[in-house]
Amino acid sequence: MGSSVTSTLLTGIAELTTHADSGGLADSTVADAAMVVVDGRVAWTGPGAGAPDADERVELGGRAVIPGFVDSHAHLVFAGDRAQEFAARMTGAPYSAGGIRTTVAATRGASDDVLRSNLRRLVGEMLRQGTTTVECKSGYGLTVEDEARALRLAREQVEAVTYLGAHVVPAEYKDRAGEYVDLVKGPMLDACAPYADFADVFCERGAFDEEQTREILTAARAKGLDLRLHANQLGNGPGVQLAVEFGAASADHCTFLDDKDIDALAGSQTIATLLPGVEFSTRSPYPDARRLLDAGATVAIATDCNPGSCYTNSMPFCIAVAVRDMHMSPAEALWAATVGGAKALRRDDVGHLGVGARADFAVLDAPSYLHLAYRPGVPLVHRVWKNGTPVAG
Amino acid sequence: MGSSVTSTLLTGIAELTTHADSGGLADSTVADAAMVVVDGRVAWTGPGAGAPDADERVELGGRAVIPGFVDSHAHLVFAGDRAQEFAARMTGAPYSAGGIRTTVAATRGASDDVLRSNLRRLVGEMLRQGTTTVECKSGYGLTVEDEARALRLAREQVEAVTYLGAHVVPAEYKDRAGEYVDLVKGPMLDACAPYADFADVFCERGAFDEEQTREILTAARAKGLDLRLHANQLGNGPGVQLAVEFGAASADHCTFLDDKDIDALAGSQTIATLLPGVEFSTRSPYPDARRLLDAGATVAIATDCNPGSCYTNSMPFCIAVAVRDMHMSPAEALWAATVGGAKALRRDDVGHLGVGARADFAVLDAPSYLHLAYRPGVPLVHRVWKNGTPVAG
Ligand SMILES: [Zn+2]
Ligand SMILES: [Zn+2]
Repeated sequence: MGSSVTSTLLTGIAELTTHADSGGLADSTVADAAMVVVDGRVAWTGPGAGAPDADERVELGGRAVIPGFVDSHAHLVFAGDRAQEFAARMTGAPYSAGGIRTTVAATRGASDDVLRSNLRRLVGEMLRQGTTTVECKSGYGLTVEDEARALRLAREQVEAVTYLGAHVVPAEYKDRAGEYVDLVKGPMLDACAPYADFADVFCERGAFDEEQTREILTAARAKGLDLRLHANQLGNGPGVQLAVEFGAASADHCTFLDDKDIDALAGSQTIATLLPGVEFSTRSPYPDARRLLDAGATVAIATDCNPGSCYTNSMPFCIAVAVRDMHMSPAEALWAATVGGAKALRRDDVGHLGVGARADFAVLDAPSYLHLAYRPGVPLVHRVWKNGTPVAG
Repeated sequence: MGSSVTSTLLTGIAELTTHADSGGLADSTVADAAMVVVDGRVAWTGPGAGAPDADERVELGGRAVIPGFVDSHAHLVFAGDRAQEFAARMTGAPYSAGGIRTTVAATRGASDDVLRSNLRRLVGEMLRQGTTTVECKSGYGLTVEDEARALRLAREQVEAVTYLGAHVVPAEYKDRAGEYVDLVKGPMLDACAPYADFADVFCERGAFDEEQTREILTAARAKGLDLRLHANQLGNGPGVQLAVEFGAASADHCTFLDDKDIDALAGSQTIATLLPGVEFSTRSPYPDARRLLDAGATVAIATDCNPGSCYTNSMPFCIAVAVRDMHMSPAEALWAATVGGAKALRRDDVGHLGVGARADFAVLDAPSYLHLAYRPGVPLVHRVWKNGTPVAG
């Protein structure tokens, strides 16, 4: 080991969940464990009694350790909030995609620094809640310049960036949706692709239909972007089928699924990303996670943090709701929020603590990861490590 | 003002909710507000522009301020947890009151210091989540000595203490419930009354029936204790009617109510205390808060924090669930979690920030209290003040 590389031994881990066997749902949990971190990576995990020596030692005092959460779906570049719209919805007004335009107006009018500082606040909150990998979409700019700006700002602070010019047709293109689609798959895509890893389309009644979605996905793929899709959130539709057909990394929401959608997901590499915070915050029926899991689909959980349909960015909260209302077991929910999210971003270096993985993890003020669902709403994240270094808590 | 008394002016409050008119549901919210605290009490609140001078100044940077939460129902003196029972329940096992006996065994076997330290951890978590007044029950001792010990330990750390010898009939009294009731209303009551403000009975099938509940309440009242009741949690029953008949401060749970129960609560001073965390964590139907509110009953929200049916102690989480699943407005839910809780404890000095009230409040990392429901699960409590002094955050 070179003189500049320090090894750190973490001891006193009451329960270590590694998800090292990232192919399955096994929770890979070791009691009374230890972990060695070298150069920002996991170098060893196992029972504390058999731990090797290291340069530094950190005692965790009987706390549980889990992989850092991978939040694979968030909309974090925006200005303003919509608390009043939320309050009105809770007393009876329905949710519609049209509210997005409120945030578009506020975002276009905001300076880079305002957007940066709001993004920093949200990413900081996420880190303190155990989320060590964040995906962030554009979608509140909806002009060539504002979309490119959103992606550039996102790229400064998060690891995975998604071009979502096709979030909604902006007000100025009312009755000219075709022209807007041409913009999205043409000049806007050209301007945004250099900053983006993925392209995404909100394929939904009131947003973009099957043909429009096809055109945009085809153009984005030709530009070398990986694909993901907002699919089947507000009703049955073609989104999930398109996601599978185009080999998208993930189909997100999956709230209203036919048998053929379930079969398509189960027979594909496309991850079904469930966003329980959205159903919670829009008082909608929850997706049927059990049916997806039992059919063999791979499920991820993410927050969808955004100022309209779901302003939580708490992965522990989403896990608790997934267990309570989507009938996932606590082990399935934790896996979906870590390995599942990583798979939805086509990453294999995060979301687990197998040897060689990035040493991104959360130390819980609890003896077991079960407490994430057992103690809903309680801030249980004691400390967060990223790249082998404590960064929050 | 005497030389030893310092006045503190808090400025930069984006939104101040005082609930100063504590008789109604008005949210008494002032934008761009300030508050003056003198000698641990609220001395002045109003628009920041008209704030008086003070010895000290604290700038809150555009954050919202709310009264500290009053959690009027919690079971915090215990040892062990029941995470495995929770996980089993989430995958199909039903909740029954019998699981209480698991905690009774662990609690009896624990030292005073173990119980103290668990209680300190939980009360500390509560404070960091904005709860400045805590009620705590006994009920995991179920012997004369163990119940008195629980109340003595609770009295060291919380403000309101409730004798709950009638939590469940302990295993050693199986088939001798009558003898156990005699103990609860006799020697156990004698030993416990000096430490207690209230007496409580779990009036439910599987716990104590109407006649047993009457006997215990009658004896406790004769000892000078105020009354509260676990009522109508698992099914319809006589609990709510008894609570009203005995003039109890509160009937707690109220999950299964007949028309006559609603009428009785609406026509009484007995608070209907709803515990949404329990329904969340046992996957039960939620109480009908709307029906209670619309009938004119006074509603409180509390956590019921305990290791069996609900291990959350997060009032913000309970507010979010009350809004989402019990159809309370965000304003009604905040009121119920503050003034409502105070009324359920027969307190008028906490739960609001009217002039003269105890200066117990939470500063939120948010511009409005609406964010408590709008951003479920996100730890939004920036700092907590109790008796006019910052104590957590
Ligand atoms: Zn989204
Ligand atoms: Zn209780």
